[in-house]
Amino acid sequence: MNTFGRNFRITTFGESHGVAVGVVIDGCPAGMRLDEKDIQPVLDRRRPGTSPLTSPRQEKDRIEILSGIFEGVTTGTPIAMIVRNEDTRPGDYDDQKEVFRPGHADFTYQEKYGIRDYRGGGRSSGRETLGRVAAGAVAMQILAKNGIIITGTILEVHGKKTDEEITREILSAKDRGDSVGGIVEIVASGCPTGLGDPVFGKLDALIAGAMMGIGAVKGVEIGDGFVASQKCGSENNDQMTADGFKSNHAGGILGGISTGQDIVVRIAVKPTPSIAIVQQTRSREGEVVDISTGGRHDPCIVPRIVPVAEAMLALVLVDCLLEQAKYR
Amino acid sequence: MNTFGRNFRITTFGESHGVAVGVVIDGCPAGMRLDEKDIQPVLDRRRPGTSPLTSPRQEKDRIEILSGIFEGVTTGTPIAMIVRNEDTRPGDYDDQKEVFRPGHADFTYQEKYGIRDYRGGGRSSGRETLGRVAAGAVAMQILAKNGIIITGTILEVHGKKTDEEITREILSAKDRGDSVGGIVEIVASGCPTGLGDPVFGKLDALIAGAMMGIGAVKGVEIGDGFVASQKCGSENNDQMTADGFKSNHAGGILGGISTGQDIVVRIAVKPTPSIAIVQQTRSREGEVVDISTGGRHDPCIVPRIVPVAEAMLALVLVDCLLEQAKYR
Amino acid sequence: MNTFGRNFRITTFGESHGVAVGVVIDGCPAGMRLDEKDIQPVLDRRRPGTSPLTSPRQEKDRIEILSGIFEGVTTGTPIAMIVRNEDTRPGDYDDQKEVFRPGHADFTYQEKYGIRDYRGGGRSSGRETLGRVAAGAVAMQILAKNGIIITGTILEVHGKKTDEEITREILSAKDRGDSVGGIVEIVASGCPTGLGDPVFGKLDALIAGAMMGIGAVKGVEIGDGFVASQKCGSENNDQMTADGFKSNHAGGILGGISTGQDIVVRIAVKPTPSIAIVQQTRSREGEVVDISTGGRHDPCIVPRIVPVAEAMLALVLVDCLLEQAKYR
Amino acid sequence: MNTFGRNFRITTFGESHGVAVGVVIDGCPAGMRLDEKDIQPVLDRRRPGTSPLTSPRQEKDRIEILSGIFEGVTTGTPIAMIVRNEDTRPGDYDDQKEVFRPGHADFTYQEKYGIRDYRGGGRSSGRETLGRVAAGAVAMQILAKNGIIITGTILEVHGKKTDEEITREILSAKDRGDSVGGIVEIVASGCPTGLGDPVFGKLDALIAGAMMGIGAVKGVEIGDGFVASQKCGSENNDQMTADGFKSNHAGGILGGISTGQDIVVRIAVKPTPSIAIVQQTRSREGEVVDISTGGRHDPCIVPRIVPVAEAMLALVLVDCLLEQAKYR
Repeated sequence: MNTFGRNFRITTFGESHGVAVGVVIDGCPAGMRLDEKDIQPVLDRRRPGTSPLTSPRQEKDRIEILSGIFEGVTTGTPIAMIVRNEDTRPGDYDDQKEVFRPGHADFTYQEKYGIRDYRGGGRSSGRETLGRVAAGAVAMQILAKNGIIITGTILEVHGKKTDEEITREILSAKDRGDSVGGIVEIVASGCPTGLGDPVFGKLDALIAGAMMGIGAVKGVEIGDGFVASQKCGSENNDQMTADGFKSNHAGGILGGISTGQDIVVRIAVKPTPSIAIVQQTRSREGEVVDISTGGRHDPCIVPRIVPVAEAMLALVLVDCLLEQAKYR
Repeated sequence: MNTFGRNFRITTFGESHGVAVGVVIDGCPAGMRLDEKDIQPVLDRRRPGTSPLTSPRQEKDRIEILSGIFEGVTTGTPIAMIVRNEDTRPGDYDDQKEVFRPGHADFTYQEKYGIRDYRGGGRSSGRETLGRVAAGAVAMQILAKNGIIITGTILEVHGKKTDEEITREILSAKDRGDSVGGIVEIVASGCPTGLGDPVFGKLDALIAGAMMGIGAVKGVEIGDGFVASQKCGSENNDQMTADGFKSNHAGGILGGISTGQDIVVRIAVKPTPSIAIVQQTRSREGEVVDISTGGRHDPCIVPRIVPVAEAMLALVLVDCLLEQAKYR
Repeated sequence: MNTFGRNFRITTFGESHGVAVGVVIDGCPAGMRLDEKDIQPVLDRRRPGTSPLTSPRQEKDRIEILSGIFEGVTTGTPIAMIVRNEDTRPGDYDDQKEVFRPGHADFTYQEKYGIRDYRGGGRSSGRETLGRVAAGAVAMQILAKNGIIITGTILEVHGKKTDEEITREILSAKDRGDSVGGIVEIVASGCPTGLGDPVFGKLDALIAGAMMGIGAVKGVEIGDGFVASQKCGSENNDQMTADGFKSNHAGGILGGISTGQDIVVRIAVKPTPSIAIVQQTRSREGEVVDISTGGRHDPCIVPRIVPVAEAMLALVLVDCLLEQAKYR
Repeated sequence: MNTFGRNFRITTFGESHGVAVGVVIDGCPAGMRLDEKDIQPVLDRRRPGTSPLTSPRQEKDRIEILSGIFEGVTTGTPIAMIVRNEDTRPGDYDDQKEVFRPGHADFTYQEKYGIRDYRGGGRSSGRETLGRVAAGAVAMQILAKNGIIITGTILEVHGKKTDEEITREILSAKDRGDSVGGIVEIVASGCPTGLGDPVFGKLDALIAGAMMGIGAVKGVEIGDGFVASQKCGSENNDQMTADGFKSNHAGGILGGISTGQDIVVRIAVKPTPSIAIVQQTRSREGEVVDISTGGRHDPCIVPRIVPVAEAMLALVLVDCLLEQAKYR
């Protein structure tokens, strides 16, 4: 299932070291100005090779729009966008052919499909998210017109909370050939009330599914999240005033429907599984082997997940805006 | 959107104080023995009025199967099941007509639909989950045939972890007219490898959406979840042996596909919003008013969420089993 | 797959001689007056036993609304409706247990599911359409508010085109223990432009699927239909005037999108397969046997298909209206 | 809605004179040999410029596979394929900017979207079907492995039934600057029993929707189709023998499920709306104008519809095969 959304539907395709990765957006409203220059800067944010903290893989990641735009304006037909893969060095990945990297999808893809494109993770590579981010950039234009702004922030890396400490943790992990995880918070402000669709299209359920579907994400919480489980109702309820709420423990969602307050989401990101430290794994043939997957890998995927998480939240919100428009 | 699932699709309907609540299952395999006696005991587990810890509302909750069964066997056609509402005392809810209970969906339903069935929460009542639990009971029969068992456990209530402390916290909250939240863990053992469907039908994404779609759930995590965000890759990766894994930090899912290990899910449940303690809210007309929603309410919804969470996990797994069968 | 529609989604359930037949409507707008009295008269139109031309089976077919209505108004939550089966005489159908009636779904259900509810056709009975017609009645209320009216007419029975001849053909077939087919035309007037969604949600494609999904329908055409295949472009094109079209060969649809003209659909209905005349068939065990399925059957199903075809067209149009509203 | 199918899902994109047209297939089984050489010959069949009977537009229509294949084998991930548009002469279409060509989708796209890519019909061009045919070629490989063969035949053009007469009708229409329609029959042989899914996923309903969704198709019939409406039950029923049926009036489908006999479908194709003969139409501004749309157009679209109709039937059957596999 490579399609996401009910109204603003995106279908992503492509492998890390195949010909191209891309996305088709189906359901984008007509009459919106859009060209490559609107998408490219957002892709550049998730691009590797831009800082000592991320993978040195160098890719220009040039987006090309194939359809759905006429004279710089969306026509209501599907918008297909691709990015050709350039920095593919197949030789680099020969050692992944026979062994399953711990913490990666190698084993499960092999079990499920009986075949896998082992080069750089193939379809399970973070590179697949290029399509999501490109589609998210379109979604964010629609949100912006509706006064909705999405902001992602790194809250923690390896338990540390300040920029300085975070940088130190990442560089330290890199030095040790290890990796670290962290927590990202994504906030949508300016949302109208009424987004989300009980009982199986609840806004928080859609967000949770969208976030947990990002590789490396292992937890999602809305508003006070897990902390709410330790509170009393008298503390956790958001009391109301004449024109709103006194607090936002709920994270902007009640009964699966947006309240008009900020929507607040946090996600837990696991440490990158590719590490230089030697670990035990097994080969396709069942032999136990040692593996070190150092190389062009991120010691911490958290910074690069921020734009992906923002994109996914944007996609969910646009989908809900269109859903709600049906009943207005 | 009141339908859940792609292959084993359930559609629930009904309000807390309407004529009936129910569910239609579409996509249940033919040839399976099934009658009311298979469903009733599971419903009885989520029924209120069975302990001092839960709401005293008395309902027999008798399930009636309307279709899809012939001579005690499923025929592959939709299975409709209903439970008629009996203990409806409309007068009890007149005070909810004009004011929005804090922490409930009253405000958002009113904003979204311009009308709401205010009696006991209407559609947003926990009573809607009867349909999910009934469908989950059918799903569990299919899982059982495949050797998969689902078990839900209360891990914490109000931060406390032992049965004795938990009972004390709940009774104490009840005495104070307050409520408490908690954490539930749901484990599926016996799963085959290969369940889940990248990139937008990942098993963990489906589970996260399913769990966050349960009323009162504010957080979901898989495997080590938020704790993984504080670890190094060398700690978090599950190293492999000749025939499996050394550990299960991943919670049984890699790249969105089941590994064959236990699937481990935890959910954060907020404290019940209905409390006797007076809180500030507003009426539909915008007046600030005080409200106390004591009465026949659960001081802690956690125990009653366990069978619902089990049911949702069962529904996701059956859906994935059928999805996988297409490609076998 | 027992769900129809993308926005106004209906799920039907039930067998001819089970406990009940029914439907759940998901996606009906809130705020619409609706009660049983709006549905019952439409059901009565498709009810058997009302004329010498139809089956003498006597059923009251009382509709009961279980959910989705509060104080006589829709709330935006699912509307479940059921009709309990009353005139079920199981003994009547024992002879269908072992043999496959020619022209019926007995053989194919048995092959597909390995089990079938043989009583009166089970799920494949025309009685299943009760749910469709009830949902269609709700859809027609929405259409009426939008100025859209649907009218079905019998064009032909057994090749004859006047009421008198048609009655004679049906009675003659009845006398002979045979049956006859015919053609129904359904017209929607008052449609706005813009309904339908290229390239796989075209209005004519949705209509064709909806109509061919009615039991006994073997052909569908839009506008001039098969006659268009015998014409030149210069005859078939609908030339335009300043404010519309000179003709309507296209049947109100161009490129899969409504033009604002009448939508004109015709369907071919096969003769009822249940006939008293002896025919050869085989049993489940493979024995060749003779069968006569006279009894309480319609010698011509055409009149009873009219309200079903109207309902299906109404469901498609409401679905497209809601789809279009997303982009307004 | 640019996605077709539930299990073998295709999403097409692209406009006649945009950058490229293409398709993404999601749900193709892994482990199947596939490369461009399997697709190209099928595309060449629908290519224009190959005979005096078709449009002289010259395109190489080279297919490029972007994803989903590894070392010549499908991996279970999405297969994206594109064909770049080459023979685009924008100047040719300037006259279509302001006026609505009769019989085309110009008027309805403009009404629906408020904007249209007028160059050669944009999205409503027959060129969109390249994506369907490419996907259909993949589907046919799956069918071939299952022993299913699809064959399309031109039955009639302008009411004539022999090759010689058909050629004469087309050339005569071309000479006159006019166009002609016709009838195509598509037969699938070798189908197993059990394909199709009552009540809203009936095989005949899926086929009817798929066929009517092809541009220029105005009618669909299964088996005896409209002729069945003129027959008695005693003539139309397919009596059974010990191991099959005596006849195939039903066209291989009973109760929406395949019988194992040939599936027989006929479609009515309207005459190409683009003709040199002057016709009246109106401009976007509402002025009545005369139009002649001669040029590089097909005098008869029937031959080029054959591979598209075959592709659509292949897509439906593969989808049903995968659906059925879930319950085996």
